[in-house]
Amino acid sequence: MPTLSSNRYGKARVRLSKITRLETHHVFTEYTVDALLDGAFEATYIDGDNKDVLPTDTIKNTVYALAKSHSLSSPEAFALDLSEHYLKHAPAATQADVSISMRDWQRMSFAGDAHPFAYNGASQELRTTQVIRSKDSMAITGGIAELPILKTTDSAFVGFLKDEYTVLPEERDRIMATKLTATWRYNTSGVDYNHCYTIIRTALLQCFADHQSESLQHTLFAMGTAALEACRAIESIHMVMPNVHNFPFDLGRFGIENKNEIFFPADEPHGYIEGTVTR
Amino acid sequence: MPTLSSNRYGKARVRLSKITRLETHHVFTEYTVDALLDGAFEATYIDGDNKDVLPTDTIKNTVYALAKSHSLSSPEAFALDLSEHYLKHAPAATQADVSISMRDWQRMSFAGDAHPFAYNGASQELRTTQVIRSKDSMAITGGIAELPILKTTDSAFVGFLKDEYTVLPEERDRIMATKLTATWRYNTSGVDYNHCYTIIRTALLQCFADHQSESLQHTLFAMGTAALEACRAIESIHMVMPNVHNFPFDLGRFGIENKNEIFFPADEPHGYIEGTVTR
Amino acid sequence: MPTLSSNRYGKARVRLSKITRLETHHVFTEYTVDALLDGAFEATYIDGDNKDVLPTDTIKNTVYALAKSHSLSSPEAFALDLSEHYLKHAPAATQADVSISMRDWQRMSFAGDAHPFAYNGASQELRTTQVIRSKDSMAITGGIAELPILKTTDSAFVGFLKDEYTVLPEERDRIMATKLTATWRYNTSGVDYNHCYTIIRTALLQCFADHQSESLQHTLFAMGTAALEACRAIESIHMVMPNVHNFPFDLGRFGIENKNEIFFPADEPHGYIEGTVTR
Amino acid sequence: MPTLSSNRYGKARVRLSKITRLETHHVFTEYTVDALLDGAFEATYIDGDNKDVLPTDTIKNTVYALAKSHSLSSPEAFALDLSEHYLKHAPAATQADVSISMRDWQRMSFAGDAHPFAYNGASQELRTTQVIRSKDSMAITGGIAELPILKTTDSAFVGFLKDEYTVLPEERDRIMATKLTATWRYNTSGVDYNHCYTIIRTALLQCFADHQSESLQHTLFAMGTAALEACRAIESIHMVMPNVHNFPFDLGRFGIENKNEIFFPADEPHGYIEGTVTR
Repeated sequence: MPTLSSNRYGKARVRLSKITRLETHHVFTEYTVDALLDGAFEATYIDGDNKDVLPTDTIKNTVYALAKSHSLSSPEAFALDLSEHYLKHAPAATQADVSISMRDWQRMSFAGDAHPFAYNGASQELRTTQVIRSKDSMAITGGIAELPILKTTDSAFVGFLKDEYTVLPEERDRIMATKLTATWRYNTSGVDYNHCYTIIRTALLQCFADHQSESLQHTLFAMGTAALEACRAIESIHMVMPNVHNFPFDLGRFGIENKNEIFFPADEPHGYIEGTVTR
Repeated sequence: MPTLSSNRYGKARVRLSKITRLETHHVFTEYTVDALLDGAFEATYIDGDNKDVLPTDTIKNTVYALAKSHSLSSPEAFALDLSEHYLKHAPAATQADVSISMRDWQRMSFAGDAHPFAYNGASQELRTTQVIRSKDSMAITGGIAELPILKTTDSAFVGFLKDEYTVLPEERDRIMATKLTATWRYNTSGVDYNHCYTIIRTALLQCFADHQSESLQHTLFAMGTAALEACRAIESIHMVMPNVHNFPFDLGRFGIENKNEIFFPADEPHGYIEGTVTR
Repeated sequence: MPTLSSNRYGKARVRLSKITRLETHHVFTEYTVDALLDGAFEATYIDGDNKDVLPTDTIKNTVYALAKSHSLSSPEAFALDLSEHYLKHAPAATQADVSISMRDWQRMSFAGDAHPFAYNGASQELRTTQVIRSKDSMAITGGIAELPILKTTDSAFVGFLKDEYTVLPEERDRIMATKLTATWRYNTSGVDYNHCYTIIRTALLQCFADHQSESLQHTLFAMGTAALEACRAIESIHMVMPNVHNFPFDLGRFGIENKNEIFFPADEPHGYIEGTVTR
Repeated sequence: MPTLSSNRYGKARVRLSKITRLETHHVFTEYTVDALLDGAFEATYIDGDNKDVLPTDTIKNTVYALAKSHSLSSPEAFALDLSEHYLKHAPAATQADVSISMRDWQRMSFAGDAHPFAYNGASQELRTTQVIRSKDSMAITGGIAELPILKTTDSAFVGFLKDEYTVLPEERDRIMATKLTATWRYNTSGVDYNHCYTIIRTALLQCFADHQSESLQHTLFAMGTAALEACRAIESIHMVMPNVHNFPFDLGRFGIENKNEIFFPADEPHGYIEGTVTR
């Protein structure tokens, strides 16, 4: 008889927005929530008996109901409360996994003044969090996703291994472009997640900008180190940094010299670099 | 015998990036170009004789070759030069249609200082242009695409027509959210396209923020009027403004009062509003 | 004073599914509907007076309400009825534009027998229609969208125009790949739209497969001619056929001969070919 | 000093197509390959010394070079050979992870006859494989991804857990729709991967169609059990089955009875169900 060796269920892409009306301005928050449970749910999988299954429709409703009384001061804080609620209300669940991504809505600014209630969707960049909670443990991560960054110099790639299919020229001055995804693991709860987010984000970008890069791997490690130095509350940081190529276009065929000026960016194929830096 | 009543061909999604190295900093520009020709190309369609067809591969190469000596000071300027080149080199073409969208790469800023060569992809917003040129005429448009904007108040929708399938409640205070696409037609060439872009963009956003909206249509017309007032060099502006709904979530079922605070945003279906405002 | 020189509004991406329970099996239909109105709607745009505006929420509800009693025998038939309804219920509208795309759900088949109620989403191909109706005129189109087709031989591209940026080699045997979008205009109403769809689709594909192609343009015209021959009820057909390139990969650098066998497919940039063939 | 606690790099989205010219017809194959290495690459991450790094450009070239002499008889066979090659040519790598997805190109068929060299892209469904290989171990999976399946009856969801936010009605006859992703792990190498793929795919679909479903979880387990019964060469199967909701549309507001006929499909939010069934 086959067995159910792993299982997980829940609701994905639950989209929530909230207006908090302050005296001077409105705060508009938009989250997308994934909430998943795993545990002793064999009865529904094997026997079709749903007595332990909190419906995914309920999991969704809970997001909106809890958002009403919650400050949504940070996605981490909301994920912590949601995950605690789910564990209480679905006794068969041994683990709740709540992920939130937050859109970057910024108040419009005119002549230096922030508008009290008009926003623009400033960036495709997302702020992310994931809380994985069981009865007696909890893992909290914060993160950034989908942030395009690029530098036009101070990036090299030389001295690499060569085999019969290696034709890549050594390059001391190239464009380095990536779409950054970083997730860091907090070593404690109760920290100021918004402050940590801000200083880690700045540390990552400043290191990316200033690093004398010998490879994308080299820069990834330096960025991770900078993040760990910037924020004592995190124990490790995982980064995924695709190498989004900008290839020099061959103008020599037309008698034109391309002095490292004219490129064609390509989304596929792309290099793929990932790594975890741990304190 | 069937006839060829319309025809067009060219290359789409030609992606170009360029580094211009100034003394104090680098300028990084990324364009995506579509270049299409139409004209007396019946020989290839009907007889398979390609003698008049400039290959789409050549159309692509031209983008890179011309970019080398061009300043790329504005997408409009580059589209004008490209379209002129194509008309000259493909004598059978009676019209060249060159569209460019420009990604919003912004120099990173640390402690108030712009970094000399590091950029982040600030927004999904695109700046666009289209030049349609024939031997003796030319139409130039500038534009904005894919810009998410939103306001949390000063938006109403009441007093509308009702029929047997109308259940929408009248609403005096609702979220208004859209993803703005605007294209404006210049009434002359040789204007300062970058300045026009900036003042039109600001006029559109400021009007969106400040308008007492009775409908998305109402705001669209006001925004168009504001753009025409801001910039004398344009004769008309076309806008597409989908109504990206943020629906109040029904918390009453749980004994919770939703005082216009908790919403679910939905991408589909969406309202669709478009209009052209002409001087 | 600026004027409103064009306007249009409605609901887009209205998704509808219906089960029709027959004695032997169920018919499952999934449509996505866009329904747009234009006309004398200046009052809402200019003055914010919505008295003539049938809400887009109502436009959406109407899709579901009419679907209940409608057979949905073809997307054309449903678009015709919807557009008539909208014109009646929004007196300020001078034109209704209803577009429908239909997903290709196919009954699963086991050992040659169609299952009575299980389906798989067979293809990304969509069947499309658009009805544009005013008080005294009507234009009906049928169509196919997003259909990837490809042939590995009988496709050439030689004898083309050359300029200083032309390096493309002449090629007598290449892959021809495209993602077909075709829309044909009916010259009358009341035809058997399902039969027309089937014979036009077959004519297009068979011509694509059998044509000795000298260019994608050449094949486009032949396909259009074949469609007009196959179905007397259409007066013209418009086709968009991007040239989805499969480039030979340069293996010569590794001492390997690539006898037109190994390619890399690329989505961007792509050739773009369109044309209309008229009876 | 921070440490590099995990690392991986390679090339993603390498797209390959190949024509194999048989006497009676052409075989056209299209793969997308991701090839990743991990191992003792600290020198590049920490010190910027790339001497152990086989460039991702080389990793890409290898795909095309090996495809030339390889039969591509199955994606599994090609992934096995690629992974072996990479381990040999990058001595610092302790593990190679090669994933391939194969597009479903089908020969066109006219009057029952398969065309010798014309294809259509039959489905968005992908056949997948992943080979993870180290010096002395190897894990081989096969799979299906992105296959939309749906049934219009024989699906219920009743008797579930209820809490204060549960309003979902019990439902004995509902639409069950999902987009199936399944990956199965082979317990040996050298099996007939194509035959296994075919019989597992059929077993999954037939079970989905015939199962009296009490929940999507219930059907997932039954499908996994059916796959294990159909093919002795696999030891486990993992499935992800989002619950793509088709909600009944409330027509009662208009005095129309919706007898479980009229629905609106929604992509987000969606239920999310996953599980692994092991022999």
